[in-house]
Amino acid sequence: MRNDLILTRCGIAAAASVVGHKEAAGPLGDRFDLHSADDKFGQTTWERAEAEMQHIALTTALSKGKLHVGDVGMVFAGDLLNQCVGAAYGLADFDLPYLGLYGACSTAAEGILLASAMVTGGFCRRAAAVASSHYCTAERQYRAPVEYGGQRCPTAQWTVTGAGAFIVGEEEECSVLIRAVLPGTVLEKGVRDVSNMGAAMAPAAADTLLRFFRQTGRKPADFDLIVTGDLGYEGGDILTELMRLSGVDIRDVYGDCGMMIYNRKTQDTHAGGSGCGCSAVVLAAYLLPAIARGDLSRVLFLGTGAMMSPQSIQQGRFIPAVAHLLCLSGGKERTWKLC
Amino acid sequence: MRNDLILTRCGIAAAASVVGHKEAAGPLGDRFDLHSADDKFGQTTWERAEAEMQHIALTTALSKGKLHVGDVGMVFAGDLLNQCVGAAYGLADFDLPYLGLYGACSTAAEGILLASAMVTGGFCRRAAAVASSHYCTAERQYRAPVEYGGQRCPTAQWTVTGAGAFIVGEEEECSVLIRAVLPGTVLEKGVRDVSNMGAAMAPAAADTLLRFFRQTGRKPADFDLIVTGDLGYEGGDILTELMRLSGVDIRDVYGDCGMMIYNRKTQDTHAGGSGCGCSAVVLAAYLLPAIARGDLSRVLFLGTGAMMSPQSIQQGRFIPAVAHLLCLSGGKERTWKLC
Repeated sequence: MRNDLILTRCGIAAAASVVGHKEAAGPLGDRFDLHSADDKFGQTTWERAEAEMQHIALTTALSKGKLHVGDVGMVFAGDLLNQCVGAAYGLADFDLPYLGLYGACSTAAEGILLASAMVTGGFCRRAAAVASSHYCTAERQYRAPVEYGGQRCPTAQWTVTGAGAFIVGEEEECSVLIRAVLPGTVLEKGVRDVSNMGAAMAPAAADTLLRFFRQTGRKPADFDLIVTGDLGYEGGDILTELMRLSGVDIRDVYGDCGMMIYNRKTQDTHAGGSGCGCSAVVLAAYLLPAIARGDLSRVLFLGTGAMMSPQSIQQGRFIPAVAHLLCLSGGKERTWKLC
Repeated sequence: MRNDLILTRCGIAAAASVVGHKEAAGPLGDRFDLHSADDKFGQTTWERAEAEMQHIALTTALSKGKLHVGDVGMVFAGDLLNQCVGAAYGLADFDLPYLGLYGACSTAAEGILLASAMVTGGFCRRAAAVASSHYCTAERQYRAPVEYGGQRCPTAQWTVTGAGAFIVGEEEECSVLIRAVLPGTVLEKGVRDVSNMGAAMAPAAADTLLRFFRQTGRKPADFDLIVTGDLGYEGGDILTELMRLSGVDIRDVYGDCGMMIYNRKTQDTHAGGSGCGCSAVVLAAYLLPAIARGDLSRVLFLGTGAMMSPQSIQQGRFIPAVAHLLCLSGGKERTWKLC
């Protein structure tokens, strides 16, 4: 049996979130650091707005951590745009070694996972991770221009306009610890419905979660929260069912960033939020502070990504997906041994 | 002054290369492990062909290293396709933790850099890196369908059809050692000509190379070869000139994978080869064996990537670029101290 779990000795030293107007109007609205009333962030195109969000998010995270760019060794970053230009343009002004990622909506988790390995490995004292998505850039790239006003499916998720930035540092300076990380494998299970990413990603999330429980000997009840980002309502149901069928019931502790960010009754986002920015901003603005305060003690955060290519779908292919896991705990749990 | 250099203790345990017919007909033709006579690798679309190349490359690398998938802890992979689907589909059949990268043509170097950190950090005994590009997928995505027969600029490079796979392992099992790695920062210096990627990438290459010499106290004469992948003839000239203006003359030891892969006189590729696959296959098939044999002792390999988005160019933006450095040496150089 493989043992891919990486035990880390680090934590989140600082995090920041930047969102659009719809996210600011949602149930977590007052927790985000900044928002733009028109989703443009003072820019002339949606793509520039997305890059600007990444810039603001990293600047804000550094500032909240009372850190300078020089205090960070490198940045892992990505987004949903072709060639990941949200990250490339947004972070070009920082004099910071840059490692570009493509993990679709799993990007925040992938970045934090790699940053954790870098800090634990002693290659740098701190490493950053940044991820973003923008409703208007994603709609026109993956579906149709927003102006077209296309009808949306009930299983479709709403791409979050937002960027999250995280500074991973040594344990001593952190109130949220990263205890272990587990990278996921690519899975495709026969879903080619571009309006149902949740279904495409749920098997990957189940696979990573089951591997985690197998490799650690832990069970869901050992955690206060097992949270995916972002399966939405549709994918979340599939995940809990897949887990139940595998003999691991997570329903009592399960949550999803895509279900948390919008008000289901009043905001009309169908199956919930999605996009690299969704899990990034929910983690930065809501989950990490809750862990730091002690409201949550032990959390499994699963970044789920669907590498959905419109071209591959036209060519009849299924949607491949991946899920990366972060095991987080509060500072008071320092003596807790995961395995 | 920043010190971003990461001293690594690992090497390349195995590598493999897969190319198309044009690359097989070039000066390095007989060194590649496999090639397809029609560039289709038995597939029905160019995109499937590219994914198949990644699959074959990793399978071949494992086989050459007498390794099984279970001997490798994770794979870092990417390509030039939107959503990096060459890697996602090509590697989905391997039960292997997957970390998706987007670094444009720097992907092979970025993957090896991160794999090196994982092995050096003790997170896994071996880690793989895979990168690919395909002339026909890149042409239709970035420029125009091949059937259109568009005229090409003299400064344009030819996207290599090829995939390279690398297994990074512990020093003891390797005849080529990775002594240090240096991740690059994103730079954009005012180039927005999509037919001149070399010019867009050269400043990033110069920046990383100058940082390397500053941080190590080394000089070009300490190396047998400083090789970029892939600036081509145009970008290569600019790099050597930028370096000379900065007081570091690399001309005596400089080479470029994009200049090595095609015959300039007979193969009509204008400014040389490019694409994630170019530096990957030249490294796997030509440079690594030369280092293992002792023909080259100390080599600086610089993966250069232009994060060129056709949409950003239409929006008037410059092309951002990045260059990641690997410092390689032969097994006989074990006692040599870089710094």
